[in-house]
Amino acid sequence: MTVQFDRITLIGIGLIGSSLAHDIKRLGLAKEVIVATRSAETLKRAEELKLGDHYTTSSAEAVKDADLVIVSVPVGASESVAKEIAGTLKSGAIVTDVGSTKASVIAQMQPHMPSHVHFIAGHPIAGTEKSGPDAGFPGLFQGRWCILTPLEGTDPTALKTLRSFWEALGSRVDEMDAQHHDKVLAIVSHLPHLIAYNIVGTADDLETVTESEVIKYSASGFRDFTRLAASDPTMWRDVCLHNRDAILEMLARFSEDLAYLQRAIRWGEGDKIFELFTRTRAIRRSIVQAGQDVDAPDFGRPHPLEKK
Amino acid sequence: MTVQFDRITLIGIGLIGSSLAHDIKRLGLAKEVIVATRSAETLKRAEELKLGDHYTTSSAEAVKDADLVIVSVPVGASESVAKEIAGTLKSGAIVTDVGSTKASVIAQMQPHMPSHVHFIAGHPIAGTEKSGPDAGFPGLFQGRWCILTPLEGTDPTALKTLRSFWEALGSRVDEMDAQHHDKVLAIVSHLPHLIAYNIVGTADDLETVTESEVIKYSASGFRDFTRLAASDPTMWRDVCLHNRDAILEMLARFSEDLAYLQRAIRWGEGDKIFELFTRTRAIRRSIVQAGQDVDAPDFGRPHPLEKK
Repeated sequence: MTVQFDRITLIGIGLIGSSLAHDIKRLGLAKEVIVATRSAETLKRAEELKLGDHYTTSSAEAVKDADLVIVSVPVGASESVAKEIAGTLKSGAIVTDVGSTKASVIAQMQPHMPSHVHFIAGHPIAGTEKSGPDAGFPGLFQGRWCILTPLEGTDPTALKTLRSFWEALGSRVDEMDAQHHDKVLAIVSHLPHLIAYNIVGTADDLETVTESEVIKYSASGFRDFTRLAASDPTMWRDVCLHNRDAILEMLARFSEDLAYLQRAIRWGEGDKIFELFTRTRAIRRSIVQAGQDVDAPDFGRPHPLEKK
Repeated sequence: MTVQFDRITLIGIGLIGSSLAHDIKRLGLAKEVIVATRSAETLKRAEELKLGDHYTTSSAEAVKDADLVIVSVPVGASESVAKEIAGTLKSGAIVTDVGSTKASVIAQMQPHMPSHVHFIAGHPIAGTEKSGPDAGFPGLFQGRWCILTPLEGTDPTALKTLRSFWEALGSRVDEMDAQHHDKVLAIVSHLPHLIAYNIVGTADDLETVTESEVIKYSASGFRDFTRLAASDPTMWRDVCLHNRDAILEMLARFSEDLAYLQRAIRWGEGDKIFELFTRTRAIRRSIVQAGQDVDAPDFGRPHPLEKK
């Protein structure tokens, strides 16, 4: 199924919004792209980057006559966007989002959606640690998964159309309920980010080891965590606040496991440590085999002597 | 100061040992390289890879007439190596190591070292998650730091020679005492590895989220941790057992900070979360500015549409 919309409206033009803009243009998925964002400065930058055909700071204005509306804002802003656009959405329009939490986004948006539109929440599992309209690039979604969390009674044709849109971007599409999505993402994404932010904070607070030492010697492991810990603070604060229960559950398990490991270290139980350190290797292999990471050592970071 | 040894002996020929072999040959730092390892299989592979000039499974044999002996074995094996080589070390030889913990290695090796050799413990802050003789490559140490932890009374000329060796490999050399090294490495290297192993273990143990889901959606953060968690289990078990006190101290701080973050999530304290998530960005910037990581998004992992 090929898909082309007359008009797609992008609300929010950060990393995900701008990557969508690049791909929609590149792949000819819309005749017209409308870019809306609250910040006049960001909007200006989006225009300089030629990310759309029309630009406005008014979401209500932007969604008029749009066949597909994609909301790419921090999840905590979902309700205010829903309220703004509710009155001007075209009959039959598909409204979706790209937020990292789904139950909360549905709870914030669904009640405001008029019955004549199709609201289907979604989440492309793709990104980098960079943010803003300059961070987007074509192909971000290629080979990545996109999870849709349709509600009971979702129109099958609208759902099929939205699937085709993501597939046209090179994504593979999964469907699941919002609660399950939130649990899965709590472990594969939210907890890793939290842990990364936390360890970088711990290192920053030490008195016995200086910040300059942490920086100099970071190639021994620490620097890996600083990438996730450089992600957008507003986005990730909202994720923490909007997927609270699943995150707290995963944090509790993580801490319990860490206490077990800590005790093994204290009592010199090498066999317990070795057992854990061995089985974790298999997961890495599976991820590489599934094409979800590179096999090159050190994520393929360039080494000085390598040919560029 | 340029440096060339008549004979360098490498004891242990894993990632670090084999990278040393590549560079010693490439840079002409020795007339002759002797490779020793306990495993006949590994030794055979080292020979196939042409990593040295002579090969033996006997460390005692290998160190005869060596001017520089570099021990690159899991830190828990340091004492047995020291005992093996003590009787055959040449007078005036420099003996060093590359282990990730220093106080323990010194305690294991120093008592066995004859007074006619110069024992100076060291630690190059470089590596990848791969292990074994095939994992080494030229240039691993280029632009990285090497920490030496000389004891009181260390011969200044021997120390200068060892510094020159590491500088010839492209490293910058720092000196500090072993206890401080162990604290620094506990936060920049040991804790990150432990946390990575732990979170991968937690994900592996979940009942509500399948392993296949963890793998499919790992690009959202989790996969970053799996790299460190694929590191050599023997090496890292030994690190845990041999830097116990510093690791337990850092773990306690990490857990305390995590409890604070967890409480902020539970009580919806967005400002506390935002404050942490903001200041961690600065550390990432400093690491990139210091040349200790790439600035490219996502560690420069290739994206499908990029030109290769």
